[in-house]
Amino acid sequence: MTSLTMSLALDLLGTFVFALSGAMLAVRRSLDVFGVLVLALAAGLAGGLLRDIVLGSAPPAAFDSTRYLMTALAAGVMVFFCHKAIERINRPVMLLDALGLGLFAVTGCSKALAYGLDPLPAIILGVLTAVGGGVVRDLLVTEVPRVLREEIYAFAAFTGAVIVVVGRAFTLPEVHVAITAILLTFIVRVVSVWRGWHAPQAPGS
Amino acid sequence: MTSLTMSLALDLLGTFVFALSGAMLAVRRSLDVFGVLVLALAAGLAGGLLRDIVLGSAPPAAFDSTRYLMTALAAGVMVFFCHKAIERINRPVMLLDALGLGLFAVTGCSKALAYGLDPLPAIILGVLTAVGGGVVRDLLVTEVPRVLREEIYAFAAFTGAVIVVVGRAFTLPEVHVAITAILLTFIVRVVSVWRGWHAPQAPGS
Amino acid sequence: MTSLTMSLALDLLGTFVFALSGAMLAVRRSLDVFGVLVLALAAGLAGGLLRDIVLGSAPPAAFDSTRYLMTALAAGVMVFFCHKAIERINRPVMLLDALGLGLFAVTGCSKALAYGLDPLPAIILGVLTAVGGGVVRDLLVTEVPRVLREEIYAFAAFTGAVIVVVGRAFTLPEVHVAITAILLTFIVRVVSVWRGWHAPQAPGS
Repeated sequence: MTSLTMSLALDLLGTFVFALSGAMLAVRRSLDVFGVLVLALAAGLAGGLLRDIVLGSAPPAAFDSTRYLMTALAAGVMVFFCHKAIERINRPVMLLDALGLGLFAVTGCSKALAYGLDPLPAIILGVLTAVGGGVVRDLLVTEVPRVLREEIYAFAAFTGAVIVVVGRAFTLPEVHVAITAILLTFIVRVVSVWRGWHAPQAPGS
Repeated sequence: MTSLTMSLALDLLGTFVFALSGAMLAVRRSLDVFGVLVLALAAGLAGGLLRDIVLGSAPPAAFDSTRYLMTALAAGVMVFFCHKAIERINRPVMLLDALGLGLFAVTGCSKALAYGLDPLPAIILGVLTAVGGGVVRDLLVTEVPRVLREEIYAFAAFTGAVIVVVGRAFTLPEVHVAITAILLTFIVRVVSVWRGWHAPQAPGS
Repeated sequence: MTSLTMSLALDLLGTFVFALSGAMLAVRRSLDVFGVLVLALAAGLAGGLLRDIVLGSAPPAAFDSTRYLMTALAAGVMVFFCHKAIERINRPVMLLDALGLGLFAVTGCSKALAYGLDPLPAIILGVLTAVGGGVVRDLLVTEVPRVLREEIYAFAAFTGAVIVVVGRAFTLPEVHVAITAILLTFIVRVVSVWRGWHAPQAPGS
């Protein structure tokens, strides 16, 4: 698998799981079919759109072919008809979101490095790509975004992006690095929810 | 009328009616004169700004000349002094919004096609251009955006954008296509509100 | 001091004070350490990011080196450990915000003029740069942004940006113009809060 194919596959998978999370939230809020599709598109595409706009990569991947749009719309349609089945999974939005977080942290950080950004900016852009879709999704239904409400969220994306930078510095095989980073992000996020990990608050606040 | 002149005219008219809708919302929320101007600018310019940023068209039309800014500010000033007269129209924000929806769906989709985007991305960018100003306007006053609250909204913009793509495919005269698309969007939107059309919700939700 | 050095210094100082305001808001909302850092980054970087995206300056200054990110993160860490000391200042968020408003109105408007924008678009982009960070900061915690809630806010940034345009038109020394514009914005904003100045509402609203 070439690096480009891998990037595209991870990006589309990230789009798909975030679009699922957006569509599930729309169903939970009793939105109609168009609301479901709008939230699927917003959640699936906003992170990558932000990344590409910041990198000056025009047109952004999301609009450069029909692949991304079809992926997000397919997720929306799937949720519209099968949300009961997805709901049976324990906390589906959280799990999908955690997987998307890992996928987009990797693609965001990798693309930023490929565009010549320094390590810290690349890591932060990876985090922005990862949390962007969820922020737009939550703001559209006027909820405080998960990235501020939940304890270990941006930090999970951060660990994934750091792995990508470290892997690149040691020129480790890209596929292994990507899988490690995605898994680590997913595990940090899911275990933090499962174990109720708390990040410290400001002393005396 | 050349294609460029028409595009500019439609774009400025869309800016004007969306700016009116933003300013009317500001007055309804008892904001002061600066709040009225800020919401007029935000509602009038955000959709086209998003479109041009996605297309990599820098500087965006809204900042490339003073025309767009003057148009949005004029709408704000007009509402500030004459909102009573506008309020006398039945549901003025909804009607202005419906017209802006049609205008921006057409200019967004046309410009996207002119930049070489494929039909589906061009349609979705048309919808984004059309709903963008209203989303920013509603989020700024922390309301759930109309695009998620209302039944037939993004869909109305979608029908207009589809007409543009179909018209282009059959190389029909641009002015006729644009007028048809704007009217169709407006009619779909207004009739859906008037008749209380509902879009289906997810089965069993 | 060269013009470039001055621009960078003002931009970094603006980033720092807005990041402080974001982090203070996060502490006040009892967010954890990551929430504090996320709000510091969002408040510190969003205005300049918007400016550079509109100008098509890729990658935006915020991601072009580690300086901006380090500055915003440093503000976040400082607030996390020393928020009690900062809280002792009377209305610290308002004062920091007022200073950031002046700094970013100047850098936003100057950079826009340097990119060849006309005076009015440059002024409005200066205002957008100045209010952008605060808007994103407030929206993320689902508050109506200060720019709409407070009486003299966008107007203060507007006065600063106008000074920059006028100074450029008369080719006055850049450093003097910048300092005058920053001070004027800060004074207009702080005095308006202190004296409870009201801007007029629409007649009969």
